[in-house]
Amino acid sequence: MSRKNIITISRQYGSGGRLIGRKLAEELNIPFYDNELITLAAKQSGYSEEVFKSVDEKATNSLLYSLAVYGNLTGSIAPMPLNDQLFIIQSNIIRELAQQGSCVIVGRCADYVLDEEPDCINVFVYADMPHRAARAVAEYGLDAAKAENIIQKTDKKRSTYYTYYSNKRWGQAENYHLCVDSGPIGIEGAMGVISAYVRART
Amino acid sequence: MSRKNIITISRQYGSGGRLIGRKLAEELNIPFYDNELITLAAKQSGYSEEVFKSVDEKATNSLLYSLAVYGNLTGSIAPMPLNDQLFIIQSNIIRELAQQGSCVIVGRCADYVLDEEPDCINVFVYADMPHRAARAVAEYGLDAAKAENIIQKTDKKRSTYYTYYSNKRWGQAENYHLCVDSGPIGIEGAMGVISAYVRART
Repeated sequence: MSRKNIITISRQYGSGGRLIGRKLAEELNIPFYDNELITLAAKQSGYSEEVFKSVDEKATNSLLYSLAVYGNLTGSIAPMPLNDQLFIIQSNIIRELAQQGSCVIVGRCADYVLDEEPDCINVFVYADMPHRAARAVAEYGLDAAKAENIIQKTDKKRSTYYTYYSNKRWGQAENYHLCVDSGPIGIEGAMGVISAYVRART
Repeated sequence: MSRKNIITISRQYGSGGRLIGRKLAEELNIPFYDNELITLAAKQSGYSEEVFKSVDEKATNSLLYSLAVYGNLTGSIAPMPLNDQLFIIQSNIIRELAQQGSCVIVGRCADYVLDEEPDCINVFVYADMPHRAARAVAEYGLDAAKAENIIQKTDKKRSTYYTYYSNKRWGQAENYHLCVDSGPIGIEGAMGVISAYVRART
């Protein structure tokens, strides 16, 4: 049986991790999943996509608390908070996608959700603040004076989201197979490094 | 002016980081520094190599405390603790070596010591416990029953040493340009990934 490559990418805002993932998926000719996950989850649950987008990658209270209070998705009396419902639905979808074959998945704690999947390569992409700020201004049109603040707030949310669901520390090397500073080497350089890991693994 | 490649390697015990560094230096045909540093430092200071080996990569109290109490190496009344003397002498040697040209340096907080050197590529090599334990037994002849305990204690010391001198967290991705889990890809695989980063940087 040939090996799959399930590449999960966690990324600091402005590090180019999402673009690196998309281009890598193109290069390897495998599916790429990011916001598509929300769409799939929304369709499956019956909630509107807009409602889910408003709580996506936000964490409140604790998932354990939610499970204790609300039970599971189908057996509960009171409805579970939307963000926890979304996480559970997305986690199920991520596991189904990983079953189907090789792919690249960005964000959504996919490394944690798939921690029992032997074919995962979990990647963390980051960069120093000047590189991220420059990228956020050039690519996302952020106001240069506010870029640093927005980056810090976004990453704070991502870190909280990751720790809330995984109980692990975002950006701690041991949670990933590979961590790449994209700052000095750019998008193509980081793709080359991740490709080298994928080749070595295959 | 052509770019140097100063590759610093921090590594978990049993991850193969030292061997990866040595083989990478061979491949790139550049000098490799590890225990040689102690020898150089010992010769320069006049202390015996044995005395220095006994305190190497051990941290006590605080370097700032030492500097406050004992002053610098030459102007002090009471002698500074040996481990801090060794760190300062080694740091000076590391900076001199980096000035001379491309090289690979393992351990000794070299990434922190050289934080103002623009040609550094700082690498952290790690692996999960089963891979490290198997390697420690096979390569260093550790008793299988004790391997895990020795690995944990050694890494605890390395972590304390790193934080003591750098005030940063050992194994936090952002402190390095590249973090590689050598477990699933082995020595050659990790060399390939680091080489890809070096190529992208050059």
